[in-house]
Amino acid sequence: MKWMSFIQNEEEKYGVVDETQTKVWDMIQIAKDKQVNCPTNIQELIEGGEESLQLIKDLLNWGESKDAEKYLIPFEKVNWLSPLPKPRKNIMCVGKNYRDHAIEMGSEADIPKHLMVFTKAPTTVTSHDHVINAHAEITSELDYEGELAIIIGKKGLKISRDEAFDFIFGYTILNDVTARDLQARHKQFFIGKSLDTSCPIGPWIVHKDELKNPHNLNIRTKVNGEIRQESNTEHFIFPIDEMISILSSGMTLEPGDIIATGTPAGVGKGFKPPRYLKSGDDIEIEIEGIGKLNNIVK
Amino acid sequence: MKWMSFIQNEEEKYGVVDETQTKVWDMIQIAKDKQVNCPTNIQELIEGGEESLQLIKDLLNWGESKDAEKYLIPFEKVNWLSPLPKPRKNIMCVGKNYRDHAIEMGSEADIPKHLMVFTKAPTTVTSHDHVINAHAEITSELDYEGELAIIIGKKGLKISRDEAFDFIFGYTILNDVTARDLQARHKQFFIGKSLDTSCPIGPWIVHKDELKNPHNLNIRTKVNGEIRQESNTEHFIFPIDEMISILSSGMTLEPGDIIATGTPAGVGKGFKPPRYLKSGDDIEIEIEGIGKLNNIVK
Repeated sequence: MKWMSFIQNEEEKYGVVDETQTKVWDMIQIAKDKQVNCPTNIQELIEGGEESLQLIKDLLNWGESKDAEKYLIPFEKVNWLSPLPKPRKNIMCVGKNYRDHAIEMGSEADIPKHLMVFTKAPTTVTSHDHVINAHAEITSELDYEGELAIIIGKKGLKISRDEAFDFIFGYTILNDVTARDLQARHKQFFIGKSLDTSCPIGPWIVHKDELKNPHNLNIRTKVNGEIRQESNTEHFIFPIDEMISILSSGMTLEPGDIIATGTPAGVGKGFKPPRYLKSGDDIEIEIEGIGKLNNIVK
Repeated sequence: MKWMSFIQNEEEKYGVVDETQTKVWDMIQIAKDKQVNCPTNIQELIEGGEESLQLIKDLLNWGESKDAEKYLIPFEKVNWLSPLPKPRKNIMCVGKNYRDHAIEMGSEADIPKHLMVFTKAPTTVTSHDHVINAHAEITSELDYEGELAIIIGKKGLKISRDEAFDFIFGYTILNDVTARDLQARHKQFFIGKSLDTSCPIGPWIVHKDELKNPHNLNIRTKVNGEIRQESNTEHFIFPIDEMISILSSGMTLEPGDIIATGTPAGVGKGFKPPRYLKSGDDIEIEIEGIGKLNNIVK
């Protein structure tokens, strides 16, 4: 199943993406008509665990059998939201997790020996089909970073590598938009990584059952149709189970936590001369088995 | 006014600290008896702005006139909570904001030219009178950092230095407990700064009207009664108005945001040989005009 959040008639809703990937099942409306209490957003859905997932499946069956026309909303009629529009903590981001990206940012010496993690403020989050603010008055080096993101499904501390995948709810696409000049000036990455709208997430969350092997997914970023990043998650320096194990060794992970897994080579800074983003640029990040995250800079 | 959160009879409450600083006015009980809707926690109080503050003042007057005995709870009878027990985003921390601390962490070259900010996960937050987990299985270099923390009072973007203080709700004390070995190993500070219970905050928030000049406050950290850090906030490299202006230049600040302002010299790592924390250590951080934050390592 794929889960998306959206606004329709000024109401914040969420739903299950239809097989054609052109429409969404309006879970809020189905639950209302069936007079059943169901999670009111994807955060609650995740927290509800298996029970919530089963409830949604039942509601979906009911909706399909009743009035598909009424409950299926075409994408043209929704205002997209990030699947988790207001994360309850900062987004955790793994830095330099692809060898070739680490090298393009400096040299072989930049390939990390240990997991490197920084964060982005929840106020950075925006969604598919929304604008990335160029912030031209404070940065002249805005850059894209296409990434696979993990959504944590349940609370855990000291999670072993063997059990790490049990703690995942699903996967999505994330653009870790970065102001390179601010990132360099302020040393620790937080400021350069936390401009408003610098974290498009979406278009939806794919449940982990649909992605058989998250360590073998093609990932590609295009800017104005030109391929800039093209790689595969098999090239992670630190695989997902290791990330989760290290992060949770002393810090409790919680449902809804978002972990961005790092970006491959081909960011704007990696070109000589650098090719930073400018107003009007159209960024599309595609990850195999998930979909496409599309945003325009303005 | 000073605001604290606490648990009494398994109920999460908050209140106004009595003048003697030994008791707290139970705002939840007063509001219940007066049959008035009031904020249910300090986060809501902050979001409610001037109107909420006025409501609390009225309720307090009413409570005092009715039954002080009933509404005043002695500290011995409460289980302390951090004033904001579940912050809605990571705590933002300014690194190396005192010259002498920057030097003790390395050399004069470590004095920052630009504001450096990293974050601590909300899961790190604990309160006055609670235990700091030693995390002995993953760190042998746990360290203290006594700091003044700012609580943001209202939403703002591109806040000028002149208007910065209008966006502050109040001040509290924060211990930015750090695993130095993890901090060094993982480069970006987040992992070494985000162990569970590594962020005691409290004992309360002092409203800004009570602290005439936050840039002239003595700050002192004792470990087992021995003074380790002793300084004054007049030594900030980046003053509070500059922090707020830089942080908000591209990132929206929100009510309840917590900004830790950096620690003075005298951390464990600064001693030769280093004097890291061990189980049983008793840490007391005192800031003039606020109070004392006390925690034991275990």
